[in-house]
Amino acid sequence: MLKRKVIMAIADGLGDRPSDILDNKTPLEYAKTPTLDRLAEQGITGMMDLISPGIPVGTDMGHLILFGYKPENYPGRGPIEARGIGMNVKDSDIVIRCNFATVDENGFIVDRRAGRIREGAQELSEALNGINLGNGVQALFQTATEHRAVLILRGEGLSDQVSDTDPHAPNDGKPYALAEPLDDSLEAKKTAKALNVFLEKAHEILSNHPINEERIREGKLPANFTLTRGAGKNIELAPPGLKAGFTGSCIAGERTVLGVANLAGYQLFTDDSMTGNMDTNIALKADKALELIKVSDIVYVHLKAPDIKGHDNEPFEKAEAIELFDQLVERIADNLPNDVYLALGADHSTPCEFGEHSGEPVPVVIYGPNIRRDQVTTYSEIDCAQGGLGRMNGQQFIATLHDLMGYSIKQGN
Amino acid sequence: MLKRKVIMAIADGLGDRPSDILDNKTPLEYAKTPTLDRLAEQGITGMMDLISPGIPVGTDMGHLILFGYKPENYPGRGPIEARGIGMNVKDSDIVIRCNFATVDENGFIVDRRAGRIREGAQELSEALNGINLGNGVQALFQTATEHRAVLILRGEGLSDQVSDTDPHAPNDGKPYALAEPLDDSLEAKKTAKALNVFLEKAHEILSNHPINEERIREGKLPANFTLTRGAGKNIELAPPGLKAGFTGSCIAGERTVLGVANLAGYQLFTDDSMTGNMDTNIALKADKALELIKVSDIVYVHLKAPDIKGHDNEPFEKAEAIELFDQLVERIADNLPNDVYLALGADHSTPCEFGEHSGEPVPVVIYGPNIRRDQVTTYSEIDCAQGGLGRMNGQQFIATLHDLMGYSIKQGN
Repeated sequence: MLKRKVIMAIADGLGDRPSDILDNKTPLEYAKTPTLDRLAEQGITGMMDLISPGIPVGTDMGHLILFGYKPENYPGRGPIEARGIGMNVKDSDIVIRCNFATVDENGFIVDRRAGRIREGAQELSEALNGINLGNGVQALFQTATEHRAVLILRGEGLSDQVSDTDPHAPNDGKPYALAEPLDDSLEAKKTAKALNVFLEKAHEILSNHPINEERIREGKLPANFTLTRGAGKNIELAPPGLKAGFTGSCIAGERTVLGVANLAGYQLFTDDSMTGNMDTNIALKADKALELIKVSDIVYVHLKAPDIKGHDNEPFEKAEAIELFDQLVERIADNLPNDVYLALGADHSTPCEFGEHSGEPVPVVIYGPNIRRDQVTTYSEIDCAQGGLGRMNGQQFIATLHDLMGYSIKQGN
Repeated sequence: MLKRKVIMAIADGLGDRPSDILDNKTPLEYAKTPTLDRLAEQGITGMMDLISPGIPVGTDMGHLILFGYKPENYPGRGPIEARGIGMNVKDSDIVIRCNFATVDENGFIVDRRAGRIREGAQELSEALNGINLGNGVQALFQTATEHRAVLILRGEGLSDQVSDTDPHAPNDGKPYALAEPLDDSLEAKKTAKALNVFLEKAHEILSNHPINEERIREGKLPANFTLTRGAGKNIELAPPGLKAGFTGSCIAGERTVLGVANLAGYQLFTDDSMTGNMDTNIALKADKALELIKVSDIVYVHLKAPDIKGHDNEPFEKAEAIELFDQLVERIADNLPNDVYLALGADHSTPCEFGEHSGEPVPVVIYGPNIRRDQVTTYSEIDCAQGGLGRMNGQQFIATLHDLMGYSIKQGN
């Protein structure tokens, strides 16, 4: 049977809405994207809802689906993030996603991301790693991308049924929440208590840490608190790639994406120059994609920057991030082997005016050998709605790619 | 997080098919609808199947979905209608939807709607209210809109597993059916027997009622029979709006719509001048929508007339009803606050040539702040099939509105 390969380029948070200051265009419409448009023109286009119209997804859920999983198999953010940074998770561990944050003296949140701290996060994490929380519970702590980190509560008789302490507001100025048990079990109560002890001890350690004293002197926000969310346990997902008989790779700077890719059984490639922001090394990403496609059947290459600019309500900068995506894709497209499809997509929309993920669909393209070609000539949220693929969900889009690769399973005979 | 509001204008039974006598246009294409077309041009359009392509829905089911419910939570027509007219339903009551109808001396149906009786229906209902049916069963009867009414069978040991006595034909000339038990239980048998007693006693009372003697003298069809359907019990639906954290209102003349809105937890507004037909007070509807959107997050405003003209096979009059809808929407659009989306839709198609609800999709529009705008410039069943929303089901369309309002819940992190 004819087998082909796929390189899928993912622009995180790509989808958006028209904006006054971009002449009523979306950042994708406004950006100069000659390569994305060429692929749309020569390929087949459509719109993708990762789960269903109007249902927003997180970066982890969105990528889980892009890597071939059903949304109902979602294991929780903590285990995903831990996998991404190579933490060794035991089955009895409770794994919790954290942000370094800034709180004032009354526990009110000044910034949920501590000014998106990058330098010094490693040292602060080390100071929190190994804290004894009493009752035989220990905290393991490791930094991820920028302000993100993972906390593991290790001990006997713990539960993942504990509430988030992160109030999840896009705007700050709220107090953090105490962890509460989410069921009546002794395990949940014990875990909530241990988590609250951690928050208090971490606050004390961070407040007095030289890195934060230095940040304050420099006029930066101190990373003096940790906000927690998404408690979960380690769940093994069956790798869909392995099940279908093909191999895959994922190239990314963002730890969440790497964590999901790792759970899904993909080979990971990252590098310190892949920063998860505008200054990431797109040349290395493109070159690595072309190198890995020689040994993998599917290669995902990821760019985080558009999502960050959406969260930060910066439409111009989001358009710039999309132009970066265009350059990344150009470098791949210019050297694409004949038997490789190049697919464009995103994990969700992050409209700048909204500052959060929305449930609006994202445009997709499949370009490559003998693909059915539609009349769409521009890669955008508006144009691709006229595309030959129509509107589909994430599982359907990925099934379409696997089918073009020659790895779908015929139903019936 | 950015929160916005929605006014949704619903043209009941809007969808149709091209008709010879309308120059091969649908009533919506034939009608002059400058405002509907402007909103389509400046908004995003699509086609909606309330449940799924080719599956027709009733007004109650259609609105249940538009108000945010899953079709599988449908409680039956009787309880919905009863709620709409403010009847006090007990949990043991069997609630049945009725039509006043005209039968000839042999029990053949002359008109399933007794000439769409309006005046006198109240007095006829009062004559049927409180009839003793034997075996400890009492009939409670109350009029709804025009020929519509609700019958409650009240007593011990009753069941909603009884068949309809309404033959449901769009054309008349058939005999009515006797009620049959739908399962082997004693309760179903007892209920069917009580219902048949009611039909007989009601026929006798109605045939001799002065209102009907007067109608015959005036050359009108007498309302000398009651056809029953949709037996059900009182089921509480959890209000989706309240669950999501927003409040809603519904403005309508039609009792079924008000009943569903009430079940769904929406604040109701109606008025005697909202007749459920062509002579309804569209100015009051529009003004009330603009008033209620100040205190509600979502306001539904409903126009029944297009559906009635579809059932009556009157394409010209249906086009007129749609022009009425255009005027209603114009008055809202001209005064729409900046943070409010205006959505257009319908609960189902009622093709004139068919005279009943069909499973063909209905066109939808979402107009408002920074919406993704597609190339469609006309609100019609044909043009909107090219729209940026594509083809979606009712739940997906409503999820899209809730997402734009800022009330969707992110899956994953």
